[in-house]
Amino acid sequence: MNRSGFFYDLLSTLFERQNIARVKGDGRSITSLCDDLIASASEVSGYNMGQQILSRFSELTQEDEIAFFEYLNEKMDIDIDRLQASTAAYQIDQSPENFANLLDAAEPKRQELLRRINRVPGTTGDLVKMRARLLKLLKDHPSFGRIDVDFQHLFGSWFNRGFLVPRRIHWQSPANILEKIIKYEAVHAINDWDDLRRRVEPPDRRCYAFFHPAMPDDPLIFVEVALVKGIPGSVQEILAENREILSPESADTAVFYSISNCQAGLRGVSFGNSLIKQVVEDLQAEVKSINTFVTLSPIPGLNRWLHQSVIDQPNTVVAAEDIEMAIESGELGGLKEQSQWLRRQAAHYLVNQKTRNGMPLDPVARFHLNNGAMLHDIHAGADLSPNGVRQSCGLMVNYLYDLKKVSQFHEGFAETHTVFTSREVKTLADAAAANSNGRKLKNGS
Amino acid sequence: MNRSGFFYDLLSTLFERQNIARVKGDGRSITSLCDDLIASASEVSGYNMGQQILSRFSELTQEDEIAFFEYLNEKMDIDIDRLQASTAAYQIDQSPENFANLLDAAEPKRQELLRRINRVPGTTGDLVKMRARLLKLLKDHPSFGRIDVDFQHLFGSWFNRGFLVPRRIHWQSPANILEKIIKYEAVHAINDWDDLRRRVEPPDRRCYAFFHPAMPDDPLIFVEVALVKGIPGSVQEILAENREILSPESADTAVFYSISNCQAGLRGVSFGNSLIKQVVEDLQAEVKSINTFVTLSPIPGLNRWLHQSVIDQPNTVVAAEDIEMAIESGELGGLKEQSQWLRRQAAHYLVNQKTRNGMPLDPVARFHLNNGAMLHDIHAGADLSPNGVRQSCGLMVNYLYDLKKVSQFHEGFAETHTVFTSREVKTLADAAAANSNGRKLKNGS
Amino acid sequence: MNRSGFFYDLLSTLFERQNIARVKGDGRSITSLCDDLIASASEVSGYNMGQQILSRFSELTQEDEIAFFEYLNEKMDIDIDRLQASTAAYQIDQSPENFANLLDAAEPKRQELLRRINRVPGTTGDLVKMRARLLKLLKDHPSFGRIDVDFQHLFGSWFNRGFLVPRRIHWQSPANILEKIIKYEAVHAINDWDDLRRRVEPPDRRCYAFFHPAMPDDPLIFVEVALVKGIPGSVQEILAENREILSPESADTAVFYSISNCQAGLRGVSFGNSLIKQVVEDLQAEVKSINTFVTLSPIPGLNRWLHQSVIDQPNTVVAAEDIEMAIESGELGGLKEQSQWLRRQAAHYLVNQKTRNGMPLDPVARFHLNNGAMLHDIHAGADLSPNGVRQSCGLMVNYLYDLKKVSQFHEGFAETHTVFTSREVKTLADAAAANSNGRKLKNGS
Amino acid sequence: MNRSGFFYDLLSTLFERQNIARVKGDGRSITSLCDDLIASASEVSGYNMGQQILSRFSELTQEDEIAFFEYLNEKMDIDIDRLQASTAAYQIDQSPENFANLLDAAEPKRQELLRRINRVPGTTGDLVKMRARLLKLLKDHPSFGRIDVDFQHLFGSWFNRGFLVPRRIHWQSPANILEKIIKYEAVHAINDWDDLRRRVEPPDRRCYAFFHPAMPDDPLIFVEVALVKGIPGSVQEILAENREILSPESADTAVFYSISNCQAGLRGVSFGNSLIKQVVEDLQAEVKSINTFVTLSPIPGLNRWLHQSVIDQPNTVVAAEDIEMAIESGELGGLKEQSQWLRRQAAHYLVNQKTRNGMPLDPVARFHLNNGAMLHDIHAGADLSPNGVRQSCGLMVNYLYDLKKVSQFHEGFAETHTVFTSREVKTLADAAAANSNGRKLKNGS
Repeated sequence: MNRSGFFYDLLSTLFERQNIARVKGDGRSITSLCDDLIASASEVSGYNMGQQILSRFSELTQEDEIAFFEYLNEKMDIDIDRLQASTAAYQIDQSPENFANLLDAAEPKRQELLRRINRVPGTTGDLVKMRARLLKLLKDHPSFGRIDVDFQHLFGSWFNRGFLVPRRIHWQSPANILEKIIKYEAVHAINDWDDLRRRVEPPDRRCYAFFHPAMPDDPLIFVEVALVKGIPGSVQEILAENREILSPESADTAVFYSISNCQAGLRGVSFGNSLIKQVVEDLQAEVKSINTFVTLSPIPGLNRWLHQSVIDQPNTVVAAEDIEMAIESGELGGLKEQSQWLRRQAAHYLVNQKTRNGMPLDPVARFHLNNGAMLHDIHAGADLSPNGVRQSCGLMVNYLYDLKKVSQFHEGFAETHTVFTSREVKTLADAAAANSNGRKLKNGS
Repeated sequence: MNRSGFFYDLLSTLFERQNIARVKGDGRSITSLCDDLIASASEVSGYNMGQQILSRFSELTQEDEIAFFEYLNEKMDIDIDRLQASTAAYQIDQSPENFANLLDAAEPKRQELLRRINRVPGTTGDLVKMRARLLKLLKDHPSFGRIDVDFQHLFGSWFNRGFLVPRRIHWQSPANILEKIIKYEAVHAINDWDDLRRRVEPPDRRCYAFFHPAMPDDPLIFVEVALVKGIPGSVQEILAENREILSPESADTAVFYSISNCQAGLRGVSFGNSLIKQVVEDLQAEVKSINTFVTLSPIPGLNRWLHQSVIDQPNTVVAAEDIEMAIESGELGGLKEQSQWLRRQAAHYLVNQKTRNGMPLDPVARFHLNNGAMLHDIHAGADLSPNGVRQSCGLMVNYLYDLKKVSQFHEGFAETHTVFTSREVKTLADAAAANSNGRKLKNGS
Repeated sequence: MNRSGFFYDLLSTLFERQNIARVKGDGRSITSLCDDLIASASEVSGYNMGQQILSRFSELTQEDEIAFFEYLNEKMDIDIDRLQASTAAYQIDQSPENFANLLDAAEPKRQELLRRINRVPGTTGDLVKMRARLLKLLKDHPSFGRIDVDFQHLFGSWFNRGFLVPRRIHWQSPANILEKIIKYEAVHAINDWDDLRRRVEPPDRRCYAFFHPAMPDDPLIFVEVALVKGIPGSVQEILAENREILSPESADTAVFYSISNCQAGLRGVSFGNSLIKQVVEDLQAEVKSINTFVTLSPIPGLNRWLHQSVIDQPNTVVAAEDIEMAIESGELGGLKEQSQWLRRQAAHYLVNQKTRNGMPLDPVARFHLNNGAMLHDIHAGADLSPNGVRQSCGLMVNYLYDLKKVSQFHEGFAETHTVFTSREVKTLADAAAANSNGRKLKNGS
Repeated sequence: MNRSGFFYDLLSTLFERQNIARVKGDGRSITSLCDDLIASASEVSGYNMGQQILSRFSELTQEDEIAFFEYLNEKMDIDIDRLQASTAAYQIDQSPENFANLLDAAEPKRQELLRRINRVPGTTGDLVKMRARLLKLLKDHPSFGRIDVDFQHLFGSWFNRGFLVPRRIHWQSPANILEKIIKYEAVHAINDWDDLRRRVEPPDRRCYAFFHPAMPDDPLIFVEVALVKGIPGSVQEILAENREILSPESADTAVFYSISNCQAGLRGVSFGNSLIKQVVEDLQAEVKSINTFVTLSPIPGLNRWLHQSVIDQPNTVVAAEDIEMAIESGELGGLKEQSQWLRRQAAHYLVNQKTRNGMPLDPVARFHLNNGAMLHDIHAGADLSPNGVRQSCGLMVNYLYDLKKVSQFHEGFAETHTVFTSREVKTLADAAAANSNGRKLKNGS
């Protein structure tokens, strides 16, 4: 007997406004429209112009798109002279007026432009798509990074955690949402509707997503969870078609086996940490028997590093060609016999290999460790799909979220980049490191 | 047969998160908490600190509140030296990094602080209340206006029209929403639940509001509408208890007879124009017979001006004492006989009396004229409540929204402050102006 | 994160169909319409006729209403000859055809008539109202009881527990539902919206109702519950305006202090037992700390019985005039001093006074005892409202629902009319009975 | 801006109650449980017994199932002696008590048994399934038809049109509903989710279903509609994968191209007429441009009849072998050339071929003609799927729902079995009849 009738009602409008018809163009170019929108104080004509801009943008050729972003980058940038004058004025007199002038001068016009386009109900998703287009051009047009700073600033404010809506995804969810889960799954591909159903329908499988009220049709991020007995060592057992279904109350462990960001245009606006936290809270409240929260995660950078490492320090166990073959064919071949060696290397890679600024080399490790998880275990033969073999010789990791230590681990990692591990993983890493140092010594001698 | 089931579902969470329990304090002062929140990268401890800050703030004495705002104003302001350095760097090299640094330096830390507090689900309303408290202090602490600039900037972005949800309010609405309508009604007070019911239940009465998804319990603004035959000349006939109920299809006119902003903390973040536009669209789609959209509006500044005007230019019709008596007693007395003279003065006031920057003196006139409405008619005896007599000798105005001309009128008003009027109102204003000029001439001679 | 979006959606239509416009009459009398509806096989014209019948019925004078019910009673009764023939045929050959003919012959045509009217979406409530009108006529027209048998039969099937929807009522409920709670409250009157709010808004107050999907606007029955510490002895403390609000987790007892049937037309279709059962289940799941479920119930028949009893067996404690005064004035007067004596009498009345068929004399006692509750305690001064004094000298009872014994007690009561009581109540009843028997002996000697 | 928040809320419980866990058995046999449930007055133990009965039933072997139905048929039948006594008593004195006794005696106990089982929330669907099982046994156990009479009686009352909820099905519908549409489609099979999507997602395709509030997960019947320009002559153009999508406002015709009953256990409880009527109303209100409502229907009995007819009256156009081949292979072969001849035969079959009681031989024709539709056109090559060829050589029919004539046509058909046709169809039928009579004459001579 819940108490939220009105709020369902409230959101219906969010949907209705999706249907706003795009207006017809009136002949102005997209840049004239932007100029006019910035100049205009009229809300009514502002709507019209906002819609036209988005409509035009969606039809631009790549060349025109570049021209449009150049316009945003150059013509809608900060006016440095004005900024310096406002700064000087504010330095002399910190009046609110001077302060307002300074803030205004310090904001590039394109931020206001994007806010004004966003006034048209239902267009937030279009702006996210616009940034996705921009991101594709960044490599060849690095100066567009300035526009991207503005997008990031606005999206950080609009997609603030406080505005996000967590939702469970299940077999009763609308098909148009479910098809997006199929499309966006980035870790263990969902082959078809039957595969999807196996991940969202059984009582021991869960899927949770974040939505933004202005994009109610489109998830921002989602996580897939398996409720199991004991910490699992392979994703095959989780995804098996004919596995036995567990009653949730018999489970003691929740395994986060897949996390996917859905919106390319929201790169750098982080939700994953919040979503995991939210799901842990929800599961704790709902399934009392669960006391362990753990991931089963890929090691996306392992093989690349391993290949280089084996080239740098040849050894008697595997040859660079073995790794190459795994990367190319997606098949383990003789490596199948080397699981213990591989686990040690993986531990060494995850614990000891760092970027220039002292962070773990592996991006997934960075994510979970920064969330306050610890490196709990490493499994060979854990993802034997071609993709799993290609990136990490089939190895996977459990990151453990120990709720009592999450804060402490997060702080430790944030301040000193400390990688917290289980004794097991430490032993593995030490063995590999000793070996490696030994070799280094030998090599160095 | 609508298609929006999922979206109702989606919003349920918005409600659930209202219930998040406030955390216990841990001994840190509110300013230490703010310092720590800005310094911390941890989301988990960030939530905790955000909640503590809000909890502390709600318990501050006025003195401590002032101290807290002083802290925000001084300690969390822009670092001018850093800003100048970043500006200089950007002037030399417009790299995205330099640009990002510049933007960062140009934003006072308190903006990021407020965004981080807002990450805690359900706290947006608390931040709106925080600004409401700030606004009360502005008069005595004008320098706090700097903080207010930041609030305005953030709220302008968060309460962007694209994020607002329009909802009809009716007798099936939740009681906790309806009681807020009673509380927030600012123009024609709602006495009790029966009075409320008369405004939202009959088929010829409507009420529409804007909500924000992060404050689903609390309207931002609402408008009350009567569907009638012909443009009405008094609010008494609209609010009468025993009036005859009209079938909507028999109505030809929608009268906006009350618009109330609900959140003091959102002052300056304008929704009224959008709401009127939205309601006009909805009513046009729903009730085909309606072709006229008009307000019945108060003239809040009339009596104040009239009093001064009569003192400045004594005349044979009314004396300053007559106006004074109306203002003080809320009774018309002898003025009852002077309706035509009063209408002329009101027209003169609305059309010809301006602020220093050339805008109409009357705030309600400014609002509707800026929306693109025209001054259609002026009625005496239109609001005979004590309040109506006190502020405008019982006179009210119809502003007409002629959809074909709204854009044109808005532009005209925005650019040249032109007050568009009906012939009727023009005649009234001219008569009063002629008289006034005549007197001026005489006096001047 | 619930999973029920679609189902909300589904019910929206239940509402929409409320709005079906009544059709215009076509000149046929209500009885011709009934004849034609029974004769017609067309669904389309059946709808039209059903609507006309209801529309006509609502406009009948009392005289015409009686004529209409006479028509239903006589013209739409069972055809005995046909029934006897069908019975004989079935006796010879139990073929399905003969069986179908028999069932058909054994059903009065008015049942099919009512079912056909009910095909028009949204009319179930109108049929409930029709029976309410019928019930008012029963006393003067006892033969109409035949029609009532049919109504009861149909409503028993349509309002089967499996079709009812339990809903919590709270301050977020729609105002049109809440106003019905105010209107229907039959035990402790709700004075106004503030009084209502005190019963549904605080976290330690609950209200639950049953709805039928075909009457989504109108509750069938509701119960008000207080979550408290310890079993309360007066309704004043529950309804007090300025009482301290309890956090639900601190409560150990749920008190059912008011149960009201809402639909006169559903008399005899019992929901109370199911509702209590449902609420107990919901509360157990939601508020773990609650382990006692108890009522605080009126004793509606006490004073009437007491008055007679004192006349029959005068005593030295109170005189018939004392009781009369309480009944008439609603004031206790000197009886205030006699609480212990009153409690004993009440216990005696509840435990030992029976109807001809051996059931407790008191209707509320019958209801709860039949549900499997036990008589737990009796309190003087427990309802000092004029109404409470008038009916029971301000006494009230706790019936205790001990979940482990509910089945056993129900069976015992159902089979042998055993009234299960606490030791306390037994002692009270024994004392009174001894006295009474003593007096009887004395009188009898 | 709709007004139905609460009602969504209301239905949520319908869903929640789906989840009621089945109780454990206590050793009683299913028939003992039925005996006890009929004997018991306790609601609590009644729930338990109801659940046990359903649980037992679902596990019965076919043999035990037959025994159970035999028990229902014999032990729970009407008591003829008691019925005759009650009838006699009522004949003498028509008191309400005697009437109630009569009704009670005339109702087999199994009706009350089924009502009591149905008290357990969420079990209505189980009872529908129980009847589906019964229907399978009817052929071999015709006497079970008596039980079926009772099921039909109860379901007719419970699934009264007034209790049904019409819902649009679309791509935003829950996947668990959509998969049932795939499963239940009985006319033009839905191959997979992509095929489904083509029927529910485009703006010119619609699907509507009836639900019962006690079975919110399971449609009762659904209809698929195409919005098109002009009346279509083949289902291939409707189902084509790459057809051009039409904007609804450009359509002038709604084509009902598939109607499927979903619940075998509701056979004989008719919803199709109501659903078509409802959809016509909804479409008229929503898409103003549509003025023609027509089906594109199969002729399921054509080939069987045609085969016999050709055997009876050999002709020079086609031979019995041609028809046989079509029936067996699903391929038209040489019949492809004979479309005009086939159309004539189909018209003759639909217009002139009757059952013993004078109704059209074709079941689909009976359905639509009885709804008040007219036979508008017959198309060859209209359904070239193997199934379409097998049953009707690929021919299909348009039944036209002319809203102004639906009542009149229905009455005409109901009273005199008149088959209303367009001139075109009449011409076709006359041509075939003439021929056939000619041949008959010849043969007869």
